[in-house]
Amino acid sequence: MENLSFYNDDKLHEECGVIGIYEKNNINTANLAYFGLIALQHRGQESAGIAVNNDGIITCYKEMGLVSEVFDNQILNLLKGDMCIGHVRYSTMGESFVTNAQPLVVKYKNGTIALAHNGNLVNAQALRREMEDQGMIFTTSIDSEVIASLIAKNYTSNIEEAISKTMDKIKGAYALTIMTNEKLIGVRDKHGMRPLVLGRLGNGYVLASETCALDTIGAEFIRDINPGEIVIIDENGVKSIQTKPEEKALCIFEYIYFARPDSVIDGLGVYGARHSAGRMLAKEQPVEADAVISVPDSGTAAAIGYSLESGIPYTVGLIKNRYIGRTFIQPSQEIRETGVTLKLNPLKEEIEGKRIVMVDDSIVRGTTSMKIVQALRAAGAKEVHVRVSSPVILHSCYFGIDTPRRDELVGATTIIEKIKEKIGADSLGYLSHNGLMQSIGSCGKGFCTACFSGKYPVDITEEGDKHAFERR
Amino acid sequence: MENLSFYNDDKLHEECGVIGIYEKNNINTANLAYFGLIALQHRGQESAGIAVNNDGIITCYKEMGLVSEVFDNQILNLLKGDMCIGHVRYSTMGESFVTNAQPLVVKYKNGTIALAHNGNLVNAQALRREMEDQGMIFTTSIDSEVIASLIAKNYTSNIEEAISKTMDKIKGAYALTIMTNEKLIGVRDKHGMRPLVLGRLGNGYVLASETCALDTIGAEFIRDINPGEIVIIDENGVKSIQTKPEEKALCIFEYIYFARPDSVIDGLGVYGARHSAGRMLAKEQPVEADAVISVPDSGTAAAIGYSLESGIPYTVGLIKNRYIGRTFIQPSQEIRETGVTLKLNPLKEEIEGKRIVMVDDSIVRGTTSMKIVQALRAAGAKEVHVRVSSPVILHSCYFGIDTPRRDELVGATTIIEKIKEKIGADSLGYLSHNGLMQSIGSCGKGFCTACFSGKYPVDITEEGDKHAFERR
Amino acid sequence: MENLSFYNDDKLHEECGVIGIYEKNNINTANLAYFGLIALQHRGQESAGIAVNNDGIITCYKEMGLVSEVFDNQILNLLKGDMCIGHVRYSTMGESFVTNAQPLVVKYKNGTIALAHNGNLVNAQALRREMEDQGMIFTTSIDSEVIASLIAKNYTSNIEEAISKTMDKIKGAYALTIMTNEKLIGVRDKHGMRPLVLGRLGNGYVLASETCALDTIGAEFIRDINPGEIVIIDENGVKSIQTKPEEKALCIFEYIYFARPDSVIDGLGVYGARHSAGRMLAKEQPVEADAVISVPDSGTAAAIGYSLESGIPYTVGLIKNRYIGRTFIQPSQEIRETGVTLKLNPLKEEIEGKRIVMVDDSIVRGTTSMKIVQALRAAGAKEVHVRVSSPVILHSCYFGIDTPRRDELVGATTIIEKIKEKIGADSLGYLSHNGLMQSIGSCGKGFCTACFSGKYPVDITEEGDKHAFERR
Amino acid sequence: MENLSFYNDDKLHEECGVIGIYEKNNINTANLAYFGLIALQHRGQESAGIAVNNDGIITCYKEMGLVSEVFDNQILNLLKGDMCIGHVRYSTMGESFVTNAQPLVVKYKNGTIALAHNGNLVNAQALRREMEDQGMIFTTSIDSEVIASLIAKNYTSNIEEAISKTMDKIKGAYALTIMTNEKLIGVRDKHGMRPLVLGRLGNGYVLASETCALDTIGAEFIRDINPGEIVIIDENGVKSIQTKPEEKALCIFEYIYFARPDSVIDGLGVYGARHSAGRMLAKEQPVEADAVISVPDSGTAAAIGYSLESGIPYTVGLIKNRYIGRTFIQPSQEIRETGVTLKLNPLKEEIEGKRIVMVDDSIVRGTTSMKIVQALRAAGAKEVHVRVSSPVILHSCYFGIDTPRRDELVGATTIIEKIKEKIGADSLGYLSHNGLMQSIGSCGKGFCTACFSGKYPVDITEEGDKHAFERR
Repeated sequence: MENLSFYNDDKLHEECGVIGIYEKNNINTANLAYFGLIALQHRGQESAGIAVNNDGIITCYKEMGLVSEVFDNQILNLLKGDMCIGHVRYSTMGESFVTNAQPLVVKYKNGTIALAHNGNLVNAQALRREMEDQGMIFTTSIDSEVIASLIAKNYTSNIEEAISKTMDKIKGAYALTIMTNEKLIGVRDKHGMRPLVLGRLGNGYVLASETCALDTIGAEFIRDINPGEIVIIDENGVKSIQTKPEEKALCIFEYIYFARPDSVIDGLGVYGARHSAGRMLAKEQPVEADAVISVPDSGTAAAIGYSLESGIPYTVGLIKNRYIGRTFIQPSQEIRETGVTLKLNPLKEEIEGKRIVMVDDSIVRGTTSMKIVQALRAAGAKEVHVRVSSPVILHSCYFGIDTPRRDELVGATTIIEKIKEKIGADSLGYLSHNGLMQSIGSCGKGFCTACFSGKYPVDITEEGDKHAFERR
Repeated sequence: MENLSFYNDDKLHEECGVIGIYEKNNINTANLAYFGLIALQHRGQESAGIAVNNDGIITCYKEMGLVSEVFDNQILNLLKGDMCIGHVRYSTMGESFVTNAQPLVVKYKNGTIALAHNGNLVNAQALRREMEDQGMIFTTSIDSEVIASLIAKNYTSNIEEAISKTMDKIKGAYALTIMTNEKLIGVRDKHGMRPLVLGRLGNGYVLASETCALDTIGAEFIRDINPGEIVIIDENGVKSIQTKPEEKALCIFEYIYFARPDSVIDGLGVYGARHSAGRMLAKEQPVEADAVISVPDSGTAAAIGYSLESGIPYTVGLIKNRYIGRTFIQPSQEIRETGVTLKLNPLKEEIEGKRIVMVDDSIVRGTTSMKIVQALRAAGAKEVHVRVSSPVILHSCYFGIDTPRRDELVGATTIIEKIKEKIGADSLGYLSHNGLMQSIGSCGKGFCTACFSGKYPVDITEEGDKHAFERR
Repeated sequence: MENLSFYNDDKLHEECGVIGIYEKNNINTANLAYFGLIALQHRGQESAGIAVNNDGIITCYKEMGLVSEVFDNQILNLLKGDMCIGHVRYSTMGESFVTNAQPLVVKYKNGTIALAHNGNLVNAQALRREMEDQGMIFTTSIDSEVIASLIAKNYTSNIEEAISKTMDKIKGAYALTIMTNEKLIGVRDKHGMRPLVLGRLGNGYVLASETCALDTIGAEFIRDINPGEIVIIDENGVKSIQTKPEEKALCIFEYIYFARPDSVIDGLGVYGARHSAGRMLAKEQPVEADAVISVPDSGTAAAIGYSLESGIPYTVGLIKNRYIGRTFIQPSQEIRETGVTLKLNPLKEEIEGKRIVMVDDSIVRGTTSMKIVQALRAAGAKEVHVRVSSPVILHSCYFGIDTPRRDELVGATTIIEKIKEKIGADSLGYLSHNGLMQSIGSCGKGFCTACFSGKYPVDITEEGDKHAFERR
Repeated sequence: MENLSFYNDDKLHEECGVIGIYEKNNINTANLAYFGLIALQHRGQESAGIAVNNDGIITCYKEMGLVSEVFDNQILNLLKGDMCIGHVRYSTMGESFVTNAQPLVVKYKNGTIALAHNGNLVNAQALRREMEDQGMIFTTSIDSEVIASLIAKNYTSNIEEAISKTMDKIKGAYALTIMTNEKLIGVRDKHGMRPLVLGRLGNGYVLASETCALDTIGAEFIRDINPGEIVIIDENGVKSIQTKPEEKALCIFEYIYFARPDSVIDGLGVYGARHSAGRMLAKEQPVEADAVISVPDSGTAAAIGYSLESGIPYTVGLIKNRYIGRTFIQPSQEIRETGVTLKLNPLKEEIEGKRIVMVDDSIVRGTTSMKIVQALRAAGAKEVHVRVSSPVILHSCYFGIDTPRRDELVGATTIIEKIKEKIGADSLGYLSHNGLMQSIGSCGKGFCTACFSGKYPVDITEEGDKHAFERR
């Protein structure tokens, strides 16, 4: 409602998190989904929703707000069923408010489908136009409706086949949890761009964007869903259909920033990946200094890695105010001038008189970095050396990440020396693309690094979609 | 959420009210729609919504609750535009909560349509199935989406033509306000089952379910929309397209109970109609008594008419508690036993020792009547003669009125003598079908009286729809 | 928060309503109090509160808002106890928001007292100053705290004695329900200015401002509390202490406007009193006309009486919009100009071409009357004769009624002929003071009619209090 | 409302935080107080309030909830004034809900006093009884009302003198911000048990519980208020009155847990104190291990210190779910059994196969520690060595800290060997009292360490108060 840019954290943002649960005869699966979604809340804070299946009857509740704000005991008591899917969505202002919240529930020829989607299609506009030209309507502006429409169109007698055919049409990133009147289905796009895992819970199963959701509700990790895989869960257990995958291209930013550090994606731990990136950063961008600090919370793993590799002691240099997060009050002018201290306050005693290495996981616009460097100097830092545990962001994302327009990406418009000057650092060093790949044990394959490299795993030349997403 | 049956008022209930406003360069039309919807609030209290058109951009806000609860200054300030439509919906629990609120906003091949609907189609299920079989999906369970889908399917180059073709397909009751990126459109079904009027406001126009909405916002009544008429309003003024109408069949219950007494529908004032029905009732069902009282508020006009005709003085015999309406607290057992007094308290001094004629506009299940008669006796009434200013309700409605199943309709299952006994009255008299028609100056044509006569103006033999609606 | 003057109904307003319930071993007395307060809601809509006594432990919940907004199931479940008192308060902006809500709960030397007060003291400021000079503090700005402080100061070993001594000190209007750790106590001031009744409920007792609250919760009326009486209810039953009363001076406006028509105060039914006033008005202020209408809802009883006496038929001439009440949206200019129709819409068919007698219970500023007369003329009234079923209001009230400053009282500043011109009526007639007294069967004694006569039953010369109350 | 014990974090809890601001002619001081209170939110999350002084008129707003929930733009706009005080209160269920929120605003003989209090008096009950015996009442159950009452009683012509006399009567912990119609006053108890600092803001001054509030709003730290000092701020600047102090006894838990790590109290940085305690702990309680982890967030500084001293690498071993905090949904049985993972999830890759030193700042009941140790073992820890950077808690606090009853203090009832067994650790080591004192550079004086030593700085033998507080 208001311009909250002051609180911007200058980070890229994930669009969504999904979950799906089936445990026969446990009518309280929505309670599990609730806590699973809380564990995935970092993936989206705009809206939350759960759809349950009670003996084939699907009921859905979704609202704007955090999971803990959207649901209360009264509502959860209305959501009984032994199968459910859930969704959290990141905060971008849609056209008609709650209409765009998920799960999306649709009626089609064979009954009801509920669908929760994490990701973004690059040919959604084209597909919409094509279907509109055939006389169809769309009641939301989310890709989920495009996917659901295609499933319905492709349905003859078999939902798996309809999904498979749909996957041949849609291009882009998607991790889906789908619920029909009888089945729970998990789908991961052919490049595996967004994560999706399978776990076991009592006698049932859980699908979730991240393993941290499994841990939270006491489910046991079974395996990652494969790129192009369709997993069908019903009273007969788990069945898998493997469609023809494309080259693996998992979003590298899941490791750099999006995922929770305690999650493990495609066999690689997120904390470990960040820690390794920090060590590699210390090798590539060494500096003489007295202390390594992190920009909390996302820079911490890399900062500890940097410290370990460099031998420079790690300390806490910035205290995060945990209560400022969702305030809607604009601070008065005098506070705004003092900079970043509402949110991050330098720990003077650890900063004063020292040469500081400040480790962050990424820089988008550079605005927050500038304020932190100022604050560290005001706290008495002798030198401030900024180290970033990922490469320079040069390109926009079209797969569901809220990247600013290219001209706002400081790295896309400014050479590093100038960025250094802009943010006021004594030195500035980014991890190289190679270094990043090495640090996660990759030969450079298997990941989408388009925001660094500009090499998109999917053709994104369709102008419409590109622009449509840029400021949707 | 809870069993609120205690507060049931044992009335039939309208499903919806609609409004549409266009005044060039007045970007505050949503403010007018807000007050117009408040004037139509008696037609629906579940949800409210307004969609505005700002230079072709359509924004919609809708929520569960009363108009005054759904909108506040902050939200109205976001709804700027010189064209808008609005909707209030009656409280029946839908499948997925706010999803079924209106206006419905859809994207189709030629842009955006917003649509607000009062009424009910009898072939919606069949049309849905037909379109689902063609691979289409539905994201809501409201008829509006069926209508919008048909408009989209029928669209080639001209919205009026698409609407006209759609009207050839859909059967049942509908008064619609439709907004495209350029136009405001009003549509009334071919039987004219639901009311819709046109008014002038400054340099603009207003469409509304009832004239009381025009009065409230200072608009001047122009005329009723005709059965089968499409009215198109844009910067060129008002244009009318008359499709082939069917025999007129305005819902008689608009006069008996639904409409506000200060509204005028198709040339006939609602208060006057009720008043005449009361006079006719006095002729048909006379009784010796000391006082005529009404069951407030809907029985008042007929009671005054009865008094005038019979010469028995009219007085206030029941005081309505205006604050009980939306309470969600279940009264403790001891209060429940005392009956109806939470909501309607007998005015003892006007009742005690008297022979009372108690005039109500209609009886559905008879449960409330029974409690009121008890309460009047407890207040000392010597005799209680119940007079109903409409005939016995014998049949369910399929056109958007929330009628209970036939076996709950006391009149459909019980002979009048038994109803009298059930409700404990000394005598019970209903207005005859003939008498009702006469009292409104009709030769028996022009109205849908199916709930009394079982003669439906539209074929309702499609089983699916009948059942679907019965307890939807 | 906003200027809501547009919705002003130009009436005097009661300050509060009180209730008290004791039924041994019924721990759900708060549920009864809830519905009792809803029945008293017309006496105050700003805040609501209930304090319960559970085995001597007193818990209180109070908030801004209507009774149905303040309490929900969760809160009522926390309020268990077989004794309770409750309060509703009229909407005037206090200094510190909820702090001034009641019941007030205080700790004193002998335990806890909860206190709910309807009325206003005229020497509260003086008493406060006196106690402040002795070093005491006040945490609210309500008179209840002054009363509680005096009870505490006067307490030696016996609460009844302390209350009795307090009654000797305080001057003005007060009906109190008081709850100690062991007892429920009702107190009515020595003039009996505010009503208070006693009822029986099962094995217990109820104290309430009006009998309509007894009816609502199924309690049986026993008797009115006498002026100067203290009624003590505990497990030993009901005990009464009669302090020396002053001359009876029940607020006449309880009959004219404040009380619900179905209440009976000091043996006189409210509806009947209004009805008689209407008849008397017809005798004193006859006029030739075609129809008598009321300004709903408060003018209805008098209008029916006027009709009966004059033989001019009564009809409904103005429809009240029941949903506008608590809206906080300011209507746009074009609506404001159309006048009163947002709230009261003339029923054209009953008005057009007729000479109308419009009966209202009272006129304060005259602003609303003016708008209604305009609206009636716009609806085609040939003549509009305004008849008021009470005398001209000439003086401010100091006993708890929210009277405007004298210079805003149209009757205090303008001769009747000029008022007639201001409001645009063809004729204007007020009921005389004598006529009012006669109509309620009084020889002119027993009532406070100070707003008409300026004869205050209590000395109100203490400047401080006078001014303090005028715009507090 | 519900039993939320599952989410208990097994910590002692501070009762309150206070702030006071005066900047002449800056009517937006409430905006500054808002952000200052957000910085102090860790000291109390139950209720928040701000009282402003606008040319001598004091207005107060306070509600249950977090600062960001209690205030919005509309409310802050009503709170204009160039002087204000604010308060946050810790979540304990009071008797009458919002009544006990602060600031407390009282009227007394010389005008109005607003008062915000952090701490607890040990003779409040005795003082209450004494004043109640003199006939005074109390409308809240907070000590602030006792203090305000004493100030009012002691007032003759001078507020400073009245405060000074009051300080001679009250015993216990108190840091106060007081606002009269003209002045802002800060008071710290004679032992200096609770912190209070003075800062400069533009042309004005700020009083706050902690320096982090100064940093947040851009104020410059001037100095700590001294034990027994009264600081008076008005348009003449700052004036100090030093009453006779007692032996300094600052609550040691401010350093161990309560204060934000970036605050500096009485010249000692909180982070540094914790870090030093961690180093000392490594000396006193060494162990062979592979990794040092902290129980976030409060154990982090000590864990880093332990790592530095011991040479065992520090890593992140537990991920805190930042969104679980205020949820009111009870997890289903299957989640509850999985233990602590809803809130703290072990980072398996950093734990598996390792000997872990788990550093926490304190253990109260031991329940959470037990669950964490279990979770670490389930994550594959080879050994878990629990190290606590403060001594065993043996005694309850009577100065405003929410300590459980002694029999719930695991340290008070169980020898360390048994605690180790209970929590399932391979070894357990606490920092010694001596070690703690040494680590903060104290010879053992200047601090209240009663929870460890049982040596209370104030006589607490008055039974009433002791029990009163234990489970109030």
